[in-house]
Amino acid sequence: MVLLRSYVSGEWHTAPDEGAPLHDAVTGEEVARVSSTGVDFAGALGYGRRVGGAALRELTFHQRAALLKALASHLREHREELYALSAKTGATLGDSKFDIDGGIGVLFSYASKGKRELPNDTVYVEGAVEPLGKGGTFVAQHIATPLRGVAVQINAFNFPVWGPLEKLAPALLAGVPSIVKPASQTAYLTARLVELIVESGILPEGSVQFIAGSVGDLLDHVTAQDLVSFTGSAATAQKLRAHPAIVRNSVRFNAEADSLNCSILAPDARPSTPEFDLFVKQLVTEMTVKAGQKCTAIRRAFVPAEMLDDVAEAASARLAKITVGNPSAEGVRMGALASLEQREEVRRSLKALLDAGSVVFGDPEHVDVVGADEATGAFLSPVLLKGDPERAEPHEVEAFGPVSTLLPYTSVEQVIELAARGGGSLAGSVVTGDPDFARRIVLGVAPYHGRLLVLDSDDAKESTGHGSPMPQLVHGGPGRAGGGEEMGGIRGVLHHLQRTAVQGSPKVLGAVTGRWVQGGPRTEGTHPFRKSLAELGVGDTVVAGPRTVTRADIDHFAEFTGDTFYAHTDEAAATANPLFGGIVAHGYLVVSFAAGLFVSPEPGPVLANYGLENLRFLTPVKVDDALTVTLTAKQITSRIDQDYGEVRWDADVTNQNGESVAKYDVLTLVSKEQP
Amino acid sequence: MVLLRSYVSGEWHTAPDEGAPLHDAVTGEEVARVSSTGVDFAGALGYGRRVGGAALRELTFHQRAALLKALASHLREHREELYALSAKTGATLGDSKFDIDGGIGVLFSYASKGKRELPNDTVYVEGAVEPLGKGGTFVAQHIATPLRGVAVQINAFNFPVWGPLEKLAPALLAGVPSIVKPASQTAYLTARLVELIVESGILPEGSVQFIAGSVGDLLDHVTAQDLVSFTGSAATAQKLRAHPAIVRNSVRFNAEADSLNCSILAPDARPSTPEFDLFVKQLVTEMTVKAGQKCTAIRRAFVPAEMLDDVAEAASARLAKITVGNPSAEGVRMGALASLEQREEVRRSLKALLDAGSVVFGDPEHVDVVGADEATGAFLSPVLLKGDPERAEPHEVEAFGPVSTLLPYTSVEQVIELAARGGGSLAGSVVTGDPDFARRIVLGVAPYHGRLLVLDSDDAKESTGHGSPMPQLVHGGPGRAGGGEEMGGIRGVLHHLQRTAVQGSPKVLGAVTGRWVQGGPRTEGTHPFRKSLAELGVGDTVVAGPRTVTRADIDHFAEFTGDTFYAHTDEAAATANPLFGGIVAHGYLVVSFAAGLFVSPEPGPVLANYGLENLRFLTPVKVDDALTVTLTAKQITSRIDQDYGEVRWDADVTNQNGESVAKYDVLTLVSKEQP
Repeated sequence: MVLLRSYVSGEWHTAPDEGAPLHDAVTGEEVARVSSTGVDFAGALGYGRRVGGAALRELTFHQRAALLKALASHLREHREELYALSAKTGATLGDSKFDIDGGIGVLFSYASKGKRELPNDTVYVEGAVEPLGKGGTFVAQHIATPLRGVAVQINAFNFPVWGPLEKLAPALLAGVPSIVKPASQTAYLTARLVELIVESGILPEGSVQFIAGSVGDLLDHVTAQDLVSFTGSAATAQKLRAHPAIVRNSVRFNAEADSLNCSILAPDARPSTPEFDLFVKQLVTEMTVKAGQKCTAIRRAFVPAEMLDDVAEAASARLAKITVGNPSAEGVRMGALASLEQREEVRRSLKALLDAGSVVFGDPEHVDVVGADEATGAFLSPVLLKGDPERAEPHEVEAFGPVSTLLPYTSVEQVIELAARGGGSLAGSVVTGDPDFARRIVLGVAPYHGRLLVLDSDDAKESTGHGSPMPQLVHGGPGRAGGGEEMGGIRGVLHHLQRTAVQGSPKVLGAVTGRWVQGGPRTEGTHPFRKSLAELGVGDTVVAGPRTVTRADIDHFAEFTGDTFYAHTDEAAATANPLFGGIVAHGYLVVSFAAGLFVSPEPGPVLANYGLENLRFLTPVKVDDALTVTLTAKQITSRIDQDYGEVRWDADVTNQNGESVAKYDVLTLVSKEQP
Repeated sequence: MVLLRSYVSGEWHTAPDEGAPLHDAVTGEEVARVSSTGVDFAGALGYGRRVGGAALRELTFHQRAALLKALASHLREHREELYALSAKTGATLGDSKFDIDGGIGVLFSYASKGKRELPNDTVYVEGAVEPLGKGGTFVAQHIATPLRGVAVQINAFNFPVWGPLEKLAPALLAGVPSIVKPASQTAYLTARLVELIVESGILPEGSVQFIAGSVGDLLDHVTAQDLVSFTGSAATAQKLRAHPAIVRNSVRFNAEADSLNCSILAPDARPSTPEFDLFVKQLVTEMTVKAGQKCTAIRRAFVPAEMLDDVAEAASARLAKITVGNPSAEGVRMGALASLEQREEVRRSLKALLDAGSVVFGDPEHVDVVGADEATGAFLSPVLLKGDPERAEPHEVEAFGPVSTLLPYTSVEQVIELAARGGGSLAGSVVTGDPDFARRIVLGVAPYHGRLLVLDSDDAKESTGHGSPMPQLVHGGPGRAGGGEEMGGIRGVLHHLQRTAVQGSPKVLGAVTGRWVQGGPRTEGTHPFRKSLAELGVGDTVVAGPRTVTRADIDHFAEFTGDTFYAHTDEAAATANPLFGGIVAHGYLVVSFAAGLFVSPEPGPVLANYGLENLRFLTPVKVDDALTVTLTAKQITSRIDQDYGEVRWDADVTNQNGESVAKYDVLTLVSKEQP
């Protein structure tokens, strides 16, 4: 039998002992053995920091995003192989896709976000420049730089592919190497995933390491520059959070624990409405996908008291159609739990829940199984309960399998209070056709949730459902859910960066961030629109003007564009306007004249003005005011996959008194080389 | 002697026992007694959540900001009284201003940021709408809502006013009530501060409670909706972080611990340069302000090896001029430490430091004191050491008093590595006239710092200095510094809010956030520019056009504005442009024509277009394209202190094929009532 290897310090390590056996969830046969004996954990951390971190930090965010995209494409080509291994975990093909395609999807999403939302640079510049003095010589800017440690990820058994990839994507994009430690139960699938990653040679050496088996003394060696992310049970999360080295070094610790997530059916969603059907269908889906082994699954289904029987009946009818058995057998809709131990665990929790409720559907002790043996495979019937919402058990006891409890409620206030009794959840949903009901529930339960879905007939077709974390959205929740936050797009990248406020003169901040800062040095000379991206420097400036704005200009612009707003055309009315006190030029006239001043007409490196940002009209432009524009190259972003890049220009239009009348950023595309 | 009272559950509570004595740092006389015996801590938490939280959550961010401003003004009027009490802590008037005016300044800063950067609403909408499906029916938006708990703040003795206020400001603005627990040593000053706050009646009842004395069993009762923020020693921070209730409930815990902050003198800053003097002056200031009892003070002063003697000499000369003594005595520049126990603690640390170094200036055992008795007051000489940078002590042992160590370095790489050996710091500084050196140091040490100051002759005059946390900037640092983050402007508010990703249809998201979402319902009818702020509804829309853009229009606009860029004027060159392939209309022409289409010329509620955001030109506009503009009210913000508010409009300009050619937000000011 194959003994899973660890991948540490640039080598595949095989433990010198026999290891512990891992079993096929369906057949009970041994699949692999696992042991991390002999792994030098402190050495692995040091290697990651020294080799992987250094290599990743050499790359820009865009370069790392490109690696993620290449990796995602590579893994997509090897999906079939992963599906086959996944079946041994008890997963149906649909379950496997949820895990494997879902994980690959996270890589693609971060690749795309990284390219669109992060700079092609190694430093992340966050938020606005903060003026700290009136004279403009002392300013500040928050920057974020990669931690110089390793992201240690300790994952749960239920998502052997998605789990590592959803943690790896933001870490890699941030420039932080990872050590992947899966739950042993399904580690053979993660092991193959990591083999594919390593064999591909796409990522810099040291950026991913892998531990098959116990985590050993790894955590004793983490420092303030490392991160530890855990997904799994609340009990283990607590143990890790209080680990001496984590506490002593204020190590960034992120936990994502399964929680008692709720779904709320609204009173308007009466039987025969589309929302009633959506609620029932989603409940059954959440119970049966991954055999209910999802930390986001619906455990508490709140329904208006008068509809409890209707929901029970409709859900039971749907559940009755779920064929349980060997995922490879025809017609099977739900596979096995991950192990016989898991099944025993679920049965124990079911007993506790039955103290406060009764069975609506399913037999906790028996299920008809297709294509497998109920005795050797970890099969369990979906079990729907109904319970007393005022009892503690439904809000505290989680059966981590195909189990949910129907709970009646009688008012909005009550259901908000009941939802909160879960003590913090990863995900919740409300199914309603009434936006006002949705608003009240969402705002009432938001402080207890990381994610909330409002399902209705408008979004049902495109909805990804209650249980699906999305890479663009935060995944995590307060309290019982672990208090953590993963993904959420670029937020997940920032978790791996240290935010630092840098104070200094505009010149120095410009040198640190590579961006021109108001008050920083400007260079005049060749018109900057004549320079290619390679020739252009931050601070390159053109000053143009003055041009006097006449009353005839304003009249003509009004007539030409049709913008005859009274402030531009009616002296008396304009004088009465509290902000203007007389005829003023159109804002659009001001920016149009400014463009006419700073333009360099002949063909050259500047390809297009593709946008404009943060335009503010600061001082009214009166008749016969003379406008001057100062345009300064503020940020230069080369695109790694195009022959042009983006240049952001600071535009400052001033009047004859030197007052700024308009400030904005002009966005252009500029060729890398002279045409 | 006065026994300090606690303010809990809406009442002033006097302990039934005698309490522990607190002593004047200068005279040694008893100032007050402190005891929290008899306080119902669980009750106080419950009261804060129930009464204070509910009241604060009723208010919008702008209303809370107004409370902060009123409170700041009120406290400013009572400064003198606070200064007088502050002198008993050993503080000079300058020290007291640092603490008291600094704290009031944080309130003003948050009042201003709240008004400018937060919505006049109870829900914070974060980031962009995230599309989750191609059809546009399923989208998501992150929102942030106040935690339903209490912000428990446990403060250090050295900033009895700034400490509570810098934590209170973001919590209050977030809508979260606070319990203030100061260090006993200087609690009499905080007690008076809280009395002033309570007596003012400015804040809703229950939004601030106060504990004089021990924190009792308070922490046993915190839940996932509460927060605990601690400022003080690293050892206590560790103890609190591992507190069972904090661990069990994943309570948000923020620590800010004093750290071994460094200041780096650059090789270019040779003696006689302005930067050399700035370095020495700042070092002496940081050693002596608050008698060096600042968690941000410079403990490690790195200087190029060849300049060590120069710096030692210059710093000693300045230190020799620091008169130590009773803060009320003429000419005193440095007061006492907070207590005799503190002085003993500092002397113990000094002994450890002297194992790895030697004294450059000062006598750890004796100081000449003016206007007080060295035996009864907690006086200590400023002590400057020089040390071996390769030894552990200078990077690990903190003497929390007027103590710093000079450490020589020989290369940029070495000093970055040495700075990192502090294991995480709140603040660092580099003093240099060389922006490139500044960049290398800043990017090298940023992962180990919460804040970095680059001091040079450009910013020296306006610089607030190495040791001053600023409300706009994050305060905190990794590792040794506690791993926390406070303030940082609105970031500090977000620490008190739960972030939740809300998924749903555009209509539902609009109902939840009060903002129009792309794809949400639009209402056509009366031109929305004819509606006052009170009459206008989110989703109110005007569709105007089409208007055909002729070649004559483009030619004329080029001629009129002077924007004769070849893409608008030269057929052959425009055709060669890879993005256009022919003459295109100016972007500014497109937005000007759009304004001409959607404008409603007569005087009315719309006062001005004050800006424009996120403009993107999406499709080139060719000759004879016909433009239609759809303008939709997206966000309506009433100002509590003006008779107008702001309306953000979604503008979508489309061509005859329905393609968007330009999208942007138009920003207007609109009267609350019809004129």
